[in-house]
Amino acid sequence: MHPTNDPALRSFVPVSPECHFPIQNLPYGVFRWKGESDRHVGVAIGDFVLDLGCLVEAGLLDDVDRADILFTAEDLGPFMAAGREVWSAARSAISQLLRDDEPTLRDNPILRRRALVPLTEVEMLLPVNIGDYTDFYASREHATNVGSMFRGPDKALMPNWLHLPIAYHGRASSIVISGVNFHRPVGQSNRSTAAHPTFGPTQALDFELELGFLIGPGNPLGKPIPVAEAADHVFGCVLVNDWSARDIQQWEYMPLGPFLGKNFCTSISPWVVPMLALEPFRVAGPPQDPLPLPYLRSSGDWAFNIELEAWLQPAGSPEPERICRTNARHLYWNICQQVAHHTVNGCNLRTGDLLATGTVSGPDPGSYGCLLELTWNGGKPLRLRSGAIRAYLEDGDGLTLTGWCQGSGYRVGFGSVTGSVLPALG
Amino acid sequence: MHPTNDPALRSFVPVSPECHFPIQNLPYGVFRWKGESDRHVGVAIGDFVLDLGCLVEAGLLDDVDRADILFTAEDLGPFMAAGREVWSAARSAISQLLRDDEPTLRDNPILRRRALVPLTEVEMLLPVNIGDYTDFYASREHATNVGSMFRGPDKALMPNWLHLPIAYHGRASSIVISGVNFHRPVGQSNRSTAAHPTFGPTQALDFELELGFLIGPGNPLGKPIPVAEAADHVFGCVLVNDWSARDIQQWEYMPLGPFLGKNFCTSISPWVVPMLALEPFRVAGPPQDPLPLPYLRSSGDWAFNIELEAWLQPAGSPEPERICRTNARHLYWNICQQVAHHTVNGCNLRTGDLLATGTVSGPDPGSYGCLLELTWNGGKPLRLRSGAIRAYLEDGDGLTLTGWCQGSGYRVGFGSVTGSVLPALG
Repeated sequence: MHPTNDPALRSFVPVSPECHFPIQNLPYGVFRWKGESDRHVGVAIGDFVLDLGCLVEAGLLDDVDRADILFTAEDLGPFMAAGREVWSAARSAISQLLRDDEPTLRDNPILRRRALVPLTEVEMLLPVNIGDYTDFYASREHATNVGSMFRGPDKALMPNWLHLPIAYHGRASSIVISGVNFHRPVGQSNRSTAAHPTFGPTQALDFELELGFLIGPGNPLGKPIPVAEAADHVFGCVLVNDWSARDIQQWEYMPLGPFLGKNFCTSISPWVVPMLALEPFRVAGPPQDPLPLPYLRSSGDWAFNIELEAWLQPAGSPEPERICRTNARHLYWNICQQVAHHTVNGCNLRTGDLLATGTVSGPDPGSYGCLLELTWNGGKPLRLRSGAIRAYLEDGDGLTLTGWCQGSGYRVGFGSVTGSVLPALG
Repeated sequence: MHPTNDPALRSFVPVSPECHFPIQNLPYGVFRWKGESDRHVGVAIGDFVLDLGCLVEAGLLDDVDRADILFTAEDLGPFMAAGREVWSAARSAISQLLRDDEPTLRDNPILRRRALVPLTEVEMLLPVNIGDYTDFYASREHATNVGSMFRGPDKALMPNWLHLPIAYHGRASSIVISGVNFHRPVGQSNRSTAAHPTFGPTQALDFELELGFLIGPGNPLGKPIPVAEAADHVFGCVLVNDWSARDIQQWEYMPLGPFLGKNFCTSISPWVVPMLALEPFRVAGPPQDPLPLPYLRSSGDWAFNIELEAWLQPAGSPEPERICRTNARHLYWNICQQVAHHTVNGCNLRTGDLLATGTVSGPDPGSYGCLLELTWNGGKPLRLRSGAIRAYLEDGDGLTLTGWCQGSGYRVGFGSVTGSVLPALG
């Protein structure tokens, strides 16, 4: 166990048991003071963000190789590219500085005021330049449910699905940080299988509850990453909402896959939970039968016991309501397999690339990670406590994803990713 | 007609009638002197590249707004983002300086030696940072042929194909400049529909002859580009070889589209032919029936009369042989329609984004733009003059795409994009 994961550790910064950012987490993010433009790299602790640039200036991160460059950069890219040894050293140093028995920062009120910024006073930004975004389809339950709806239960899973982690390239330009709202997309659909498609605002706007892994060091073009080395290339994890317009998607996706049904907006949570913080929550994934080809055989436990929830706040309702509760441990294909598969043909990953899991669905209906499944393509609308009925998202609806690993008396959490639906333009 | 397109113009730099880079073309590229690292922005003329940074230093581009910034940048991004007025002013100024009746540069031997660099002394680089790469499927002949092979002639075109320009997101990280070779990709395939897939080097390595349009000014997320304004957002055009592994692709592509069958390498030609230079070669595209939805109705002629060829040099053969001759005018969906479709849901394009056409195939078998079609999935191998027989590409094969617009006594050409197949790494 990495010493920074010790459940007994406590910080001098107050952290409640339900708070997502105890000293065992230490997720990285990029922020600016509200109303200012300078970007800072920081770590969340309790209700504060620790400004790593301030620690560098104060000479408190001198044990971290090139900390002066890595933590005064525009974003997390240089730090993420630096690799595991640097990640470990930085985590150790930051953990030490935040401990309740460590006076350096605790007893320096001037530095504390400068370095510990209330989260309410900052605006979070994209943590890194995401060059390429790949979306997998790693949940067997999700693939089976979608296949059942579109092709019937007999042909629910394609013949390839159990042999390889199916994926497609998503759109990098339209990835936004939590809190950015978007207009309901318009486009073509043809749900009635009429002779001609119709055009207008989507009538089947959905969310997708996903996790996303961010790549640390990449690989050169032509040089695959073996499955046993894959973990060295993964820096951390965020929540992803891959907003989807099901009617647009269904009309366009044959034969080249999703395009306008997905690329209008993808939201990610701002705090990157480092893989090191997730170590204690690694669990066995579902058994894989048939046995994958050798290049996909990972060893050790690479599923993650992460509780995941989706909360819907219907337009006009005073509060959100939980509509899905699932867990990342259900995912069939793990991140090491995804990295090995993605690069086996020589494809290069770059620092900051996002590999999302696809919708995380569990075995029972309350654990389905999108409205397509929760309402069975609108056929069984959700009846919310507020009285609202939802087959798909309506204008003004807000959707929040959250997730955490439950430790003993603390939570290693992801915070949340949220977004609201604005009316279609035009 | 833009005055720089006058067929009567001649440069003091010698240009043969078959040369791709007469004064009527003036394509932009990024180069470095062989063995050096500094990047320069230049224009091709005859067998030379005109270093625009040198012209800026000499004060010869003062009529172009911010030329000092645009042409001393790391790549073409800032110039491409500047928009049509700046593009037009730059083209006029450069054309004027290269005219045979203009003494400024012609009669200044010192400046000429510095600013006009023989193409043999430079190495070409990617012209711009390509943030997102979208590949369309715009050739009706190509889509029909592929559909016939995979689904039978009755269901060759999907029901959506005539209603919208089908596309998918490709991989940006593995786009390389002409001349970069790549290793034969390995991966899963299941051509025999056996119970289990096999793993190994692709046995169906293909090229795809495509054009690619590079985006100039982008659009904000949520703000579609109307079809009538689409041309303002397109800077220029390159050749694209979207290398493909057909056996990998066929096994993986259901239901989310191509992934490892494509993302191991995509090659582009280094010289970006500006849309202004292509103006005289705009022609009517194929009639569109059914009439597209209003958001896809472009006015004017937006097909391009560009001769396109593929040349294969089999391993061990002393010279390449032409295996395909086609024309971009066959493309069903035009670039304005592609831009309008891509953004109609609010998706944002960014400067440098690449929108490729998909394989350009014509109506007759000699005009098919990939081996999948030329050999009908390997069933009718090509018999080359050298004696070589090819169903798909073999190790050591070189493949070159070229293309040009035929003017009266000159060619507005794209140069070429070339690459060779290295053996699979094992």
